[in-house]
Amino acid sequence: MSLIIIGSVAFDAIETPFGKTDKIVGGAATYASLAASYFCKNVKIVGVVGEDFHQNDIDTLNQHGIDTTGLQIKAGEKSFFWSGKYHNDMNSRDTLVTELNVLADFDPILPESYQDCEYLMLGNLAPQTQQTVIKRLKNRPKLIVLDTMNFWMDVALNDLLETLKLVDVLTINDEEARQLSGEYSLVKAAKKILTLGPKYLIIKKGEHGALLFHEDQVFSTPALPLAEVFDPTGAGDTFAGGFIGYLAKVGTINFNNMKNAIVFGSALASFCVEKFGTERIINLTEEEIAARVKEFVKLSSFNIA
Amino acid sequence: MSLIIIGSVAFDAIETPFGKTDKIVGGAATYASLAASYFCKNVKIVGVVGEDFHQNDIDTLNQHGIDTTGLQIKAGEKSFFWSGKYHNDMNSRDTLVTELNVLADFDPILPESYQDCEYLMLGNLAPQTQQTVIKRLKNRPKLIVLDTMNFWMDVALNDLLETLKLVDVLTINDEEARQLSGEYSLVKAAKKILTLGPKYLIIKKGEHGALLFHEDQVFSTPALPLAEVFDPTGAGDTFAGGFIGYLAKVGTINFNNMKNAIVFGSALASFCVEKFGTERIINLTEEEIAARVKEFVKLSSFNIA
Repeated sequence: MSLIIIGSVAFDAIETPFGKTDKIVGGAATYASLAASYFCKNVKIVGVVGEDFHQNDIDTLNQHGIDTTGLQIKAGEKSFFWSGKYHNDMNSRDTLVTELNVLADFDPILPESYQDCEYLMLGNLAPQTQQTVIKRLKNRPKLIVLDTMNFWMDVALNDLLETLKLVDVLTINDEEARQLSGEYSLVKAAKKILTLGPKYLIIKKGEHGALLFHEDQVFSTPALPLAEVFDPTGAGDTFAGGFIGYLAKVGTINFNNMKNAIVFGSALASFCVEKFGTERIINLTEEEIAARVKEFVKLSSFNIA
Repeated sequence: MSLIIIGSVAFDAIETPFGKTDKIVGGAATYASLAASYFCKNVKIVGVVGEDFHQNDIDTLNQHGIDTTGLQIKAGEKSFFWSGKYHNDMNSRDTLVTELNVLADFDPILPESYQDCEYLMLGNLAPQTQQTVIKRLKNRPKLIVLDTMNFWMDVALNDLLETLKLVDVLTINDEEARQLSGEYSLVKAAKKILTLGPKYLIIKKGEHGALLFHEDQVFSTPALPLAEVFDPTGAGDTFAGGFIGYLAKVGTINFNNMKNAIVFGSALASFCVEKFGTERIINLTEEEIAARVKEFVKLSSFNIA
């Protein structure tokens, strides 16, 4: 099953109470494709970087079996750069720098070899760009997952609403679900959002886990309580990548598989925050992932006679 | 199995975005004993009210099989009164009025018929008063659960720490766990708190559910996502009452039964918020409770092969 992941491939400079980094590799597509690569052996990236991007970071993606044919390298231009500082609670952060650079006029190009794609992850980008990818695929993928953020609700709501009509799964956080729906109750918010196009809605609640809504069904999964959250950057993208990667692996879309996909995505995200940037998720073993998933089972299972 | 519940028995006047009440019956012991009465047929209250308290509210407790021999009625005095107004998000509220009245010099009296108690719920009160109850019992109960709040951490921390040494289970919310431990991470907070006396720690997270910590084990349960939270007053006490009531019913204290007790407590709390005050939890049927518990099972179960 092939899986296309589109999104930013970027440099981040991160400051947390535990330390700070220079420019390190980041971006939604980077985190998501690395996470997905643990489940799906046919992950293809669509993105754009500048000539400042390091070949060894591309090599790392390739070593995970990720196809980077669709990653444009723009000569004479610079990669997207984000810099942020997390507060002591690690739940909130200040953006210090956002330099769009190559992302400013990103035109996603899909190589011919990408046309057989069955799973499509649209990482957080301008809704218009996300829509362009869908339209450039000759056949509609079996499953399209879209991630977005409040920024696009503020500045490109109509584009976002048009794009939502074309997708199967939307992943947003609780505040974004409230903003998009105008409802405070997440149950009411989900009901409204499920009339906008997506058949499945995933509400990410960070340290409080995630909710999955589909028709009249709801599933709730906790986040793993962690002694230390070292760097939350990329956790949401890692979650999304693990989620769609797992679904691409099992190959059947139904509520039960979606639930499991959320658990696998949450497990991957719980690794991501243990170190800076992608450091922890580039070297996972199958055994580590299986053990982490077992922790989720233990954490949330009970047996009422 | 007999269960003593000590706590406030009071009048509340509540304002929410959905409406407002006159003085209605409230108080931690009221909510907790009503919730517990659905599981345990031998619930005994310890508390104090003024002569303004209504006999029919005492009758309601008795009709649920709750023994009110330990409920003192002070002639010429007034009952504890609290008035609050919830904000639109229902997660925060302003206290408008707090009149301690009879609670100001509450001396908990334990009737001789209460001395066989095996389960003890110490509802939120001055730690010194909670400690007095433990000391006035000739035999230590099999299980002592203590609820408290940030106020006592501010004004009576030493008393609280002394009292914590005597109990088995502590229930507090996430902010209180952070305040008590000085740790932001709830995992680290729990580790510290479990050295203070309690063998079990329950962290209540409202709409995000609850966490149970014991030795190296953790259990996480979600709250039921609700379309409408009508009035959150008493939800925490209802949770605690359902929790200890269920344990008193099953009679064996272990981690598995604690997990189930948390699910039953959460189910009771999810009813509590559906109407003003105690209105919803005075008329529950066994079938309603069983159906609600099933919803929790459905909400949080997944099956990874």
